[in-house]
Amino acid sequence: MDTNYVFINDRYVEAAQASLFITDLAIQRGYGIFDFCKTIGNKPVFLYDHLERFFHSASKMHLDPGYSATELEAILMRLIEKNNMGDSGIKITLTGGYSPDGYMIGKPNLLITQQPLDIKLSMDQKGISLVTYAHQRQLPEIKTLDYLMAIWLQPFIKEQHADDVLYHHNDLVKECPRANFFIITKENEIITAKSNVLKGVIRKNILKLAHPDFTISERDFTMADLQNAKEAFITSTTKHIMPVVSIDGKHLSQGKPGLITQQLASLLLNQVRKQA
Amino acid sequence: MDTNYVFINDRYVEAAQASLFITDLAIQRGYGIFDFCKTIGNKPVFLYDHLERFFHSASKMHLDPGYSATELEAILMRLIEKNNMGDSGIKITLTGGYSPDGYMIGKPNLLITQQPLDIKLSMDQKGISLVTYAHQRQLPEIKTLDYLMAIWLQPFIKEQHADDVLYHHNDLVKECPRANFFIITKENEIITAKSNVLKGVIRKNILKLAHPDFTISERDFTMADLQNAKEAFITSTTKHIMPVVSIDGKHLSQGKPGLITQQLASLLLNQVRKQA
Repeated sequence: MDTNYVFINDRYVEAAQASLFITDLAIQRGYGIFDFCKTIGNKPVFLYDHLERFFHSASKMHLDPGYSATELEAILMRLIEKNNMGDSGIKITLTGGYSPDGYMIGKPNLLITQQPLDIKLSMDQKGISLVTYAHQRQLPEIKTLDYLMAIWLQPFIKEQHADDVLYHHNDLVKECPRANFFIITKENEIITAKSNVLKGVIRKNILKLAHPDFTISERDFTMADLQNAKEAFITSTTKHIMPVVSIDGKHLSQGKPGLITQQLASLLLNQVRKQA
Repeated sequence: MDTNYVFINDRYVEAAQASLFITDLAIQRGYGIFDFCKTIGNKPVFLYDHLERFFHSASKMHLDPGYSATELEAILMRLIEKNNMGDSGIKITLTGGYSPDGYMIGKPNLLITQQPLDIKLSMDQKGISLVTYAHQRQLPEIKTLDYLMAIWLQPFIKEQHADDVLYHHNDLVKECPRANFFIITKENEIITAKSNVLKGVIRKNILKLAHPDFTISERDFTMADLQNAKEAFITSTTKHIMPVVSIDGKHLSQGKPGLITQQLASLLLNQVRKQA
């Protein structure tokens, strides 16, 4: 098997040896940010959207990446070349660094890891089931390392025979831990939450899509709107558009992917193909 | 300088060499728990309270420490002996472990670190200033690694010329990031929040104190109660009782430690001395 390289701070090292001292603020206090992008045939997809968000998250969390976007892009391209995985996921993490007292931010540690990824350029025909849970993520518009609630909820999700959890807060529907959430109303309006959610890269690219058969809106919507939706789907870098066929045990669109969802997935996948 | 040892999983290693592979779920997702206790003259203080809470946190977060409380106590005592620091702080951390996919819990990694600590057995006469901030900690009764908000707020705390932040939520006063918070009413009732706060070990030992001059209650109280308080203080393992002399720029007890606070600190410090 070929060596899997990761980039740490200023050099490429073998993944199996990649470590951080335990004084790092991610280990001490869960403090850090990341972004996650994919390559198809060694070509990064929506790279500038991911880099833009990475620098936004870093800045909001008072962390200096130590590289410009251009420098970081060159490092990524070199890593992609060295690993030569074809289709892959790349995670760029920036931690709070080695802290003198386990609380103050130090010089951030930059980690770039790459894993092979099975990327489908067609929509999943089975779909997934969600279970709702009342929670508002903290600092929701920053892509932090905080997945405490998401991982803590795994046994609950399993007990509910669901594939993932959908957060809601003060009667407003929000997002999944690693995906944005959309509904399609009976009037063919496609809606995703506007406030206090992570602004996903696939979400952003869907909001740019236009088609005479439907309208796409970014606005907050309620649990009642969710009840009345005729279709729903989630979006993420790895899943693109994944149909949601059941929420809290109740079927949507007869438990199958909806028609508008399928139309939209095909428009989105065209955009993805253009990048690859 | 003597070697500073830390304990990782099953062995004592030099602190300067202590590291974790980057697939650990603390680095990947900020997932883990800890507890923090102190030694005075190499004797652990309130150790059973800390061990009890550590096992409680681990269990709630679906993490198996891999040792019984008795075994963990023996490891701690051996570490204290090896480091021979006298007065110190000991942090016992249990992370989500090396995760196969960066999301699933693995076999937890146990880290025990010790640092010299300057422990005062008299109350600080200057006191500290707090600034309030609307926030509810997630999974508040579990001592998780999540200090995202606390560290993110450091520049805000500095701008407000405060020493720390006091969280409140839905008009109820909660806690500081690393300390519990108490007020003393004009009727000499000492109150600390009951719900959705971390149950601190010093807080627990204060609730046990009794004195004819005042009553001590664990119950939720409002921002208006805070406005009307005549004294306030915070409690933590390192600070014991620390007087709060100003909140949001407004003085309490004429900007000096209050009388009841001093009485209570002296009762508490007697209890600490008994352990040391």
